Amino acid sequence: MKINIHGFEISEPVLSEANKAYNNLLTGTIPSKMTGWLAPRDNEVVVRCTELGAKFAELSDVVVVVGIGGSYLGAKAVAELLPNNGKLRFAGNTLSGAYYEQLLRELEDKDFSVIVVSKSGGTVEPGVGFRIMEQALIARYGTTGACSRLAAVTSSESSLLGNICSANGYTRLALPENIGGRYSVFSAAGLLPLAAGGIDIASLVNGTTASNANRETIVTYAAARQTLYRAGKKLEVLSAWEPNVRWLGEWYKQLFGESEGKDGRGLFPVSLELTADLHSMGQYMQDGERLMFETMLSFNGSADITVPARRGDDDKLNMLSGVKLDEVNRILKEAVISAHLDGGIPVIELIPGRLTAESAGELMHFMMTSCAVSGLTMGVDPFDQPGVEAYKSKAKALFAHQNI
Amino acid sequence: MKINIHGFEISEPVLSEANKAYNNLLTGTIPSKMTGWLAPRDNEVVVRCTELGAKFAELSDVVVVVGIGGSYLGAKAVAELLPNNGKLRFAGNTLSGAYYEQLLRELEDKDFSVIVVSKSGGTVEPGVGFRIMEQALIARYGTTGACSRLAAVTSSESSLLGNICSANGYTRLALPENIGGRYSVFSAAGLLPLAAGGIDIASLVNGTTASNANRETIVTYAAARQTLYRAGKKLEVLSAWEPNVRWLGEWYKQLFGESEGKDGRGLFPVSLELTADLHSMGQYMQDGERLMFETMLSFNGSADITVPARRGDDDKLNMLSGVKLDEVNRILKEAVISAHLDGGIPVIELIPGRLTAESAGELMHFMMTSCAVSGLTMGVDPFDQPGVEAYKSKAKALFAHQNI
Repeated sequence: MKINIHGFEISEPVLSEANKAYNNLLTGTIPSKMTGWLAPRDNEVVVRCTELGAKFAELSDVVVVVGIGGSYLGAKAVAELLPNNGKLRFAGNTLSGAYYEQLLRELEDKDFSVIVVSKSGGTVEPGVGFRIMEQALIARYGTTGACSRLAAVTSSESSLLGNICSANGYTRLALPENIGGRYSVFSAAGLLPLAAGGIDIASLVNGTTASNANRETIVTYAAARQTLYRAGKKLEVLSAWEPNVRWLGEWYKQLFGESEGKDGRGLFPVSLELTADLHSMGQYMQDGERLMFETMLSFNGSADITVPARRGDDDKLNMLSGVKLDEVNRILKEAVISAHLDGGIPVIELIPGRLTAESAGELMHFMMTSCAVSGLTMGVDPFDQPGVEAYKSKAKALFAHQNI
Repeated sequence: MKINIHGFEISEPVLSEANKAYNNLLTGTIPSKMTGWLAPRDNEVVVRCTELGAKFAELSDVVVVVGIGGSYLGAKAVAELLPNNGKLRFAGNTLSGAYYEQLLRELEDKDFSVIVVSKSGGTVEPGVGFRIMEQALIARYGTTGACSRLAAVTSSESSLLGNICSANGYTRLALPENIGGRYSVFSAAGLLPLAAGGIDIASLVNGTTASNANRETIVTYAAARQTLYRAGKKLEVLSAWEPNVRWLGEWYKQLFGESEGKDGRGLFPVSLELTADLHSMGQYMQDGERLMFETMLSFNGSADITVPARRGDDDKLNMLSGVKLDEVNRILKEAVISAHLDGGIPVIELIPGRLTAESAGELMHFMMTSCAVSGLTMGVDPFDQPGVEAYKSKAKALFAHQNI
C-alpha cells in the first residue's frame, strides 16, 4: 500500500496523536472492546465458509444474501470488485415492493439458496427480507429442503435470529460480539456470501496480514485526514479509478461516516468514480465551494487492451493509438491531480498495487484500521453508532400506533 | 408533482427572486441561449428515435451506448428506473482496460449494435470508446454491416463525430446546439438509447408537458434550496426511496453540481438510497456536522407484495404481517423525516406519484427546470461548465509531451 500526499503537509502534533491512537488500539487501551476485527485470521471460519459457500454455489443458480448496512456492504463491495460466479443477489436492504417482486420473478425458474446476515435479527428490513425468502424456499423445496439451503450469520451470543435457527434447525455461523457490522467483512458475515460467490476468501483474508504490516501508511492516512479536518475541510471525496470500485465507495462511506460522524462532528464521506464523474461532479470539484479534500484510489491496471489505430486522424486521437487504456487512465490521473491542486483541493493518493483478492483484502483492512485510528485521534468512539437508533425507535412507535 | 416543506420556511424575498428568474427563463431574457430543452416536444425526433431504436433492438442482443457525462447519465438513469429489455450496456465513460475486456468478452457470442453520443466528438473517453466499438463492429460485420449497426448523436452543427459520419456513411442524429449535455435526456442523446432499450419514449416526453404546468412546484423547490443555501447549508442530500432511483441520483448530481458549482459557490449534491443507506450514512445524517438539508424523493409504490405471516413471533415482526411492503416503506419515511427534523435537518419532500414513463419524464424535466431557476436565482449561469476544461487541457498537454 503506497500513500502520496499532495498540496498540504501533515501536522506533526496530529501525526504524533495518531501514532499514540494506533498504539492504544493495538494494546487495547481504549474504552471500546469492539476490536475483534484487528487480527481476523481465523482458519476455522475460512474453511467452514469456503465449504458451505461452495455447497450453496453448487446447489444454486442464485444465492440470495439478506442483510443491510454492515451485514451487506462488505460482501457487495468485494463481489463488485473481484471476478466471481455472478450468482449473488442481495435482499433485506430495502422495503421496495417492486424490488422483491422482480427478485421473486427471477427466482421462479432458478434454483436458489439463502444466506441471512443479521447480528441481532431484530432489524426490520432484513427481518422482512428473511420472512420473504424463507417463505419462498419452503414453498419451493419444503421445510427439509429449505433447511439445507438456508444459513444464518448472527451474534455469537443470543439473538432473535439465533433462536429461529435453533427452532428450525437452520445452519448458524457466528458473528463475534466484539466485531461491529462495518468492520465485519472478514468474519463469516462477509466470507460466507463471498465464498458462495466463488471468491477466493482465503487470499482475501491473507491481505489482512499485509495490512497489519503497514503501520506507517495507516497512521499517515489517519493523520492526513485529521490535519485537513482541523484545517476546516468538511468533505472527504474518495475518487476511485475503476467502475468496479463504485461499491467499495459505498462500503467506505459507511465505514468512515458511521465511525466519525457523531457529536456534531466528522468528515462527510463522498465517493466518485473517475473518469466518469469528472464529467458530472468535475465542475463542482474544480470551481464550487472549497469544502473538500480528495483521496484518490487507484489499483495498477494490468489489462492488455490498447487504443485502436484509425485511418486518418479525424477524431484527433492518433497520439494515443497503440497506447494501453490503463496507461491513458494513469496519465489522466496525473492531469486530474494537477488540475485539482490548482483548484485548491488537497489530494491523498492511495495505491494498493494490482487488483487481486489479496490486495483487495489488504486495502479494506487498511481502511478499517486507519478509520479506527482517525476516529480515536479526533476523540470519538469509532465503534458505536448511537444515531442509527433514532429512526428505528420512531419507526417502532409508528408501527405500534398506526392502524396497519 | 407534490412538494412538502418540513422544518423551515421559504424566504419571501428569495421566492420573489425565483419567480422572476423563472419568468426570465421562459421569456429568454437571460444571457444564455442554451434553453432549447425547455419545450422539448419534437414529434419528428421521437418517431425517428423510436423507429431506429426498435431496429437496433431487433438486430441485437446488446446495444452498446458510448458516451460520458450528459451524453450518458440521462439514458442510464431512465434505463435503471423503468422496466426495459435489458439490452443496454454503456461504454465511453471510463478508460478502464478491465472494463473493456469484460465488455468485449460479453459481445463475443452476441449480436450487437452501437450508439455513440458526443456533441463535439473531441472528448477522449467516448473517443477511445468509439474507436474500440467501431473496430469490434467492423471485425464482426464488415464495413457495410457496421454501417447498419452504428448511429451517432452529435452536434446539429459541425463536429469531429459529424465528419466521421459523413466520411463513413454512418447514421447521424442531431443534438441541437442550444441544449447542453446535462439537459439533453429528451433529445436524441437520451431518446435513441432509451428507444433501443425498449422504453416508451413518447410517454417519457409527454411528461415534460405535465412538468411545464408545475410552475408553483418548480419555483418552490428552487426557492427552498436557495433559502437553505443562504442560511448556510452546504450539502443537498437527495434521498430516494427505491433501489432503482440510484442512477437518477447520479444524473441529479451532474445536473445540479455542474449547473450551480461555480465561482467558489453552490450546494454540493449528494444522493442516498433509502432505507439501505440509513444503515450506512444514517449515523452521520443524524449526529454528524449540520452541513446538509435533505430532499426526499418517493414515488408511490404500487406493488402487491406483503410481509408474510410467520408462526410464532420469534422475529417480533408480527405487527407487520400482511402489510404491503410499500406501506411499511411509507411509514419508515415518516419515521425518518421525524428523526431527521429532530436532528436539525430541514426536509423537502418531492412526490411525483406512481412510477411510469410519463411521471419519470415529468420528474426529470421538473428537476431540470427547477435547477435552472435555482442557478439563475443565485446569480450563476446554470448552462455553462468552465471548470470541466481544467483537467482536459492538462491531459492534452500531458498526452502531447509524454513519450507514450
